[in-house]
Amino acid sequence: MGQNLILNAADHGFTVVAFNRTVSKVDHFLANEAKGKSIIGAHSLQELCEKLKRPRRIMLLVKAGSAVDDFIAALLPFLEEGDIIIDGGNSHFPDTNRRCRELAAKGIRFVGAGVSGGEEGARYGPSIMPGGNREAWPYIKDIFQAIAAKSDGEPCCDWVGDEGSGHFVKMVHNGIEYGDMQLICEAYDIMKRGYGMTCSEIGDVFGEWNKGVLDSFLIEITRDILKYNDPEDGTPLVEKILDSAGQKGTGKWTAINALDLGMPVTLIGEAVFARCLSSLKSERVRASQILQGPEIPPFTGDRKAAIDDLEQALYASKIISYAQGFMLIREAGKEYKWELNNPAIALMWRGGCIIRSVFLADITKAYRAKPDLENLLFDDFFKAAIHNAQPGWRRAVAKAVEFGLPTPAFSTALAFYDGYRTKDLPANLLQAQRDYFGAHTFRVKPEFASASLPAGKDIHINWTGRGGNVSASTYLA
Amino acid sequence: MGQNLILNAADHGFTVVAFNRTVSKVDHFLANEAKGKSIIGAHSLQELCEKLKRPRRIMLLVKAGSAVDDFIAALLPFLEEGDIIIDGGNSHFPDTNRRCRELAAKGIRFVGAGVSGGEEGARYGPSIMPGGNREAWPYIKDIFQAIAAKSDGEPCCDWVGDEGSGHFVKMVHNGIEYGDMQLICEAYDIMKRGYGMTCSEIGDVFGEWNKGVLDSFLIEITRDILKYNDPEDGTPLVEKILDSAGQKGTGKWTAINALDLGMPVTLIGEAVFARCLSSLKSERVRASQILQGPEIPPFTGDRKAAIDDLEQALYASKIISYAQGFMLIREAGKEYKWELNNPAIALMWRGGCIIRSVFLADITKAYRAKPDLENLLFDDFFKAAIHNAQPGWRRAVAKAVEFGLPTPAFSTALAFYDGYRTKDLPANLLQAQRDYFGAHTFRVKPEFASASLPAGKDIHINWTGRGGNVSASTYLA
Repeated sequence: MGQNLILNAADHGFTVVAFNRTVSKVDHFLANEAKGKSIIGAHSLQELCEKLKRPRRIMLLVKAGSAVDDFIAALLPFLEEGDIIIDGGNSHFPDTNRRCRELAAKGIRFVGAGVSGGEEGARYGPSIMPGGNREAWPYIKDIFQAIAAKSDGEPCCDWVGDEGSGHFVKMVHNGIEYGDMQLICEAYDIMKRGYGMTCSEIGDVFGEWNKGVLDSFLIEITRDILKYNDPEDGTPLVEKILDSAGQKGTGKWTAINALDLGMPVTLIGEAVFARCLSSLKSERVRASQILQGPEIPPFTGDRKAAIDDLEQALYASKIISYAQGFMLIREAGKEYKWELNNPAIALMWRGGCIIRSVFLADITKAYRAKPDLENLLFDDFFKAAIHNAQPGWRRAVAKAVEFGLPTPAFSTALAFYDGYRTKDLPANLLQAQRDYFGAHTFRVKPEFASASLPAGKDIHINWTGRGGNVSASTYLA
Repeated sequence: MGQNLILNAADHGFTVVAFNRTVSKVDHFLANEAKGKSIIGAHSLQELCEKLKRPRRIMLLVKAGSAVDDFIAALLPFLEEGDIIIDGGNSHFPDTNRRCRELAAKGIRFVGAGVSGGEEGARYGPSIMPGGNREAWPYIKDIFQAIAAKSDGEPCCDWVGDEGSGHFVKMVHNGIEYGDMQLICEAYDIMKRGYGMTCSEIGDVFGEWNKGVLDSFLIEITRDILKYNDPEDGTPLVEKILDSAGQKGTGKWTAINALDLGMPVTLIGEAVFARCLSSLKSERVRASQILQGPEIPPFTGDRKAAIDDLEQALYASKIISYAQGFMLIREAGKEYKWELNNPAIALMWRGGCIIRSVFLADITKAYRAKPDLENLLFDDFFKAAIHNAQPGWRRAVAKAVEFGLPTPAFSTALAFYDGYRTKDLPANLLQAQRDYFGAHTFRVKPEFASASLPAGKDIHINWTGRGGNVSASTYLA
């Protein structure tokens, strides 16, 4: 990632000083990939700092966690007031909050920049999501916007906001990426096990989908993957890959943050849990010999229509996932007191990054038309899109339920949609239960307020007629 | 809670010293509820400690968090080596781990005891889940087992394990409680909005269910709640209650812990998110005016059969939820190196607590027959139960999808079941995607291992044919 970003910056006319703790790597890089480019090597942090213009702009690409703190500590003796440190790794945003404050106290301007796009993105144009000390932005804007991906001519990089907001937005990006990948896996599974299609046939479907509303990097590479045959025997390589998904933690962070902020980001949650379940491979193998499900009948009927339903299920679920992601960002802005720029966030995700898609152009449009849009689902375009997709989405989920094929992400998206558009959820019963067994109190619906059930008050009812005045209190026995 | 526990202990022949920081509360308690019982008052911590036998056994019932630490600090000057402090609140288990260690260093034996049962439970027999310093157990066992609920003659209290394991098990209990309540709400919602039934009719159904496999405290109180009419106008009170669910955090802790330990405890996760969604009431009201769903047709057909399907959906989902809960407990035992006693845990939940049920007698039986049972679903009884429930469960979920009624918990339980019993999940594609865009590597299924795809090795493929040798590394530019 680091080498590719350096090469990218050099290609755009910037002179870059490269450093790595393993000095031989620097020499190898200079003698090979970096040869003939405006790239200078450094063999120590001191040399690195001596060779840089003031204010120094130093970008770290190290493993998230204590390595970042260690590098910063090692750098500090060679820095001056006003210098800029940029953490381009996948740091957890609370760490970035802390580092911003600690370094500001030392006169150093700290930026946490989420970078997405994988190796290729880094080399030819990533999505960059910088946040932190706003004073740093004028000094790094030109470089970052030059090396970033372009979408319809606009750079996929803009200032996100204060403190760890850049890393926060990158975290949500990664969570959404988990969701998108899970949705694709569910569609693939239904085509494979439900409709008995070959990898090549499924690849063709993804190829078709890539020409429509689902046009995106992940759909494109899915097509390529399904078409990739093992050179050894000419059969699809993907079928040989162990179905035990790894994770680096950013999806998990997103789900935990959603729980902490009380936002129902259910699709990312299910996507993370789906990876957890996949990793219990040996237990699943045993379970598959014990637990039964329906027999899936050989496919009959209109395959084209069934595949269209799947496309609608994927599209509608994706709209829900992004709506949930932006709900989380909205809540984080409130909770952490960050001014966040929704249209810019959508644009940053539009190109360069793993979730880049035509879809994000529509989201950018929605937030540009109405920057304070309460919910993505309230935008006319997405409202119409989800209404249009709804019948196929429901048929696809019902079909999976009938087949016994797991669609945790399709299903949770639909449950969210149906819950979100429900004025009166059954949580009234839940509140009654809580009051019944724990005296947790409830409130009354305004339309039913009365003298004995006043609006806006916490009410407790003695449901059983038993029990005295003994209340829940603080006691020591 | 504290007053009720004191009254309960006194009823069982123990002499209890009561203290509260608000001294007037102690006097009021002694002059009223505690009058004529073996309950002594104390007006200061010093007096409390002076009046107690050695080793002192002091149970705290204060709000989780810093209040517990403050009380402990205030007590310490009056304690001697060997004294026992029991935290009976809903403390987060990592805090209990810490307090155990800190107090052990001071010669004080600390116990974190989860207590469930609400006000009534505390008064007439709660479920008590103590863990921590094992040396304390012989001194508190008799009291705890005397005041605890009894199930078929056995006390719903036993030693859970080391450190914070008692509070951990109570946390999972609460998470499961969230799940059970959500499942009941989904069944109620489908009967109400899907089948157009009145509260009284739905109450009758819960009454019937309470005679079968679902026989439990929560089903029983649901029946009572649905039958409870507002004395003002004789209409069901539950329909007037605001559908915005509160939470105290223990369900959220369970979901976060599941994410941290990588266990797919999806039902509790969805139950917590369902509460979050319910609390966005005003946003939902707006959404209900914008977003459309299917029209629910007037009910025709066999209502009895439809309700039987719902019962099966609730029962099967509940089996999944408890299986997931025990998976989490199993993983916690491994992760935190606690010896945990599954049959005892099931028995502690069998009576006294909010999730008490006939169902937990079956779980106790399963774990007694095979204490190292890998998964609850592998037990013959539960395997047969879920196989039997499966057709109705699928029909109920498909019906909800068709109606546009949200069933996040029924649906996620089914998705988990179908995923768990799947030998080959589509995570192979996901691993291919991760390797494609991020060089994250994959492993090969053992049955497809070859010289070029060796088993047990992390393999990276150049999927595109593009790109050089540049690797993801640690760089500083």
